[in-house]
Amino acid sequence: MFGDLPAETAQRLARVSRVAVFPSGASICQQGDTASDLFLVLDGQVSLLNTTANGESIVVEVIQNGGHFGLAAVLARLPYLATARANAQSRILMVDGNQLLDLVHTEPTLLSRIIRAEALDFRSMVQQICDLKFRTTSQRLGCYLLTLVSEQVQNSASFKLPFDKRLLAGRLGCRQENLSRAFAALRSVGVETHGASVILHDIARLREYSLPDEAPEAV
Amino acid sequence: MFGDLPAETAQRLARVSRVAVFPSGASICQQGDTASDLFLVLDGQVSLLNTTANGESIVVEVIQNGGHFGLAAVLARLPYLATARANAQSRILMVDGNQLLDLVHTEPTLLSRIIRAEALDFRSMVQQICDLKFRTTSQRLGCYLLTLVSEQVQNSASFKLPFDKRLLAGRLGCRQENLSRAFAALRSVGVETHGASVILHDIARLREYSLPDEAPEAV
Repeated sequence: MFGDLPAETAQRLARVSRVAVFPSGASICQQGDTASDLFLVLDGQVSLLNTTANGESIVVEVIQNGGHFGLAAVLARLPYLATARANAQSRILMVDGNQLLDLVHTEPTLLSRIIRAEALDFRSMVQQICDLKFRTTSQRLGCYLLTLVSEQVQNSASFKLPFDKRLLAGRLGCRQENLSRAFAALRSVGVETHGASVILHDIARLREYSLPDEAPEAV
Repeated sequence: MFGDLPAETAQRLARVSRVAVFPSGASICQQGDTASDLFLVLDGQVSLLNTTANGESIVVEVIQNGGHFGLAAVLARLPYLATARANAQSRILMVDGNQLLDLVHTEPTLLSRIIRAEALDFRSMVQQICDLKFRTTSQRLGCYLLTLVSEQVQNSASFKLPFDKRLLAGRLGCRQENLSRAFAALRSVGVETHGASVILHDIARLREYSLPDEAPEAV
């Protein structure tokens, strides 16, 4: 979001920011608290968890290096919708929300970046809604695995899941037993798993089965 | 979003806007087209439909009077994520996207409104994701019916569904037969239906069953 800013703008932004390191398991911000900061994940991994009326915890999203959270809460001056928890030790850039709001009124480049980042966040949520409404759990898992393929030229790929299966089930909106069933169902389209290791033997077939969005956007 | 703007700002906004009337069934904008306008529903009702890779149509959201759509696409200068279709004759304020983006750089009030509207749109999508991941179809239907209760002081209410059951099923992310089952399940907590007419006989019990978010926000 803040890459390649003009030097002066970057300096002004740095003046209202600080870097904090959170150990694995630490809460970075709390659902319901008034939003104070925008958070950028420099290094590590963060789960955004929404606790429901009956105390159940939903994984809204998992944020990786380069991702951010808290933007909408800061911009709308509303409480955080989710608690952010570090899944591993995480280095986080914290930008003071009020000072950021002041800055965007005088820094057109920053304003454009913020507005675009917020719009992309919105679109990413819309895509998750479409995914939840349209695809089966196995198809959602298939689409997710396809996003982890770095080399798009070959028809096979192998990689490690970037987070554990409990978290993956939450992110996909299913129970852990349904995730196991989904992995089993994907065996017939060439998906092999050993713990966190995944081999895709036939990417074309997995795509045909999972029906990913045709033109995936970099969101 | 644009209520109570300073007179000069409102005039500048009016200069880049126009009002159009769409007959029932008309397409207002098309998924995949470059975003040209922000749309505000002055009167009528609009469905936002996302067509998937295999041609199925998903109801992302239904927009009522006072609502808007196309904001994120305009702000990110990206194609519309959904096709907008008028469910009834609809009077729409269309704000030219490029001119709006120019205006926000010189009109701080407009900028604040846009940023806040975008943030609230994001939060509304997050809440829909939590709803889809956490609640059963019957609970989602219950939560939706509770949002239609205008008088919050009494324990009973009656109203008409603002859109047909096919659309309601789509919005809730289920098939029509599951919606019928959900209505049947809600009978045990005092929900009576005759076509589009709904009577809630015991709102407290419906709340207990559906587990709506504790502090609903005006999004």
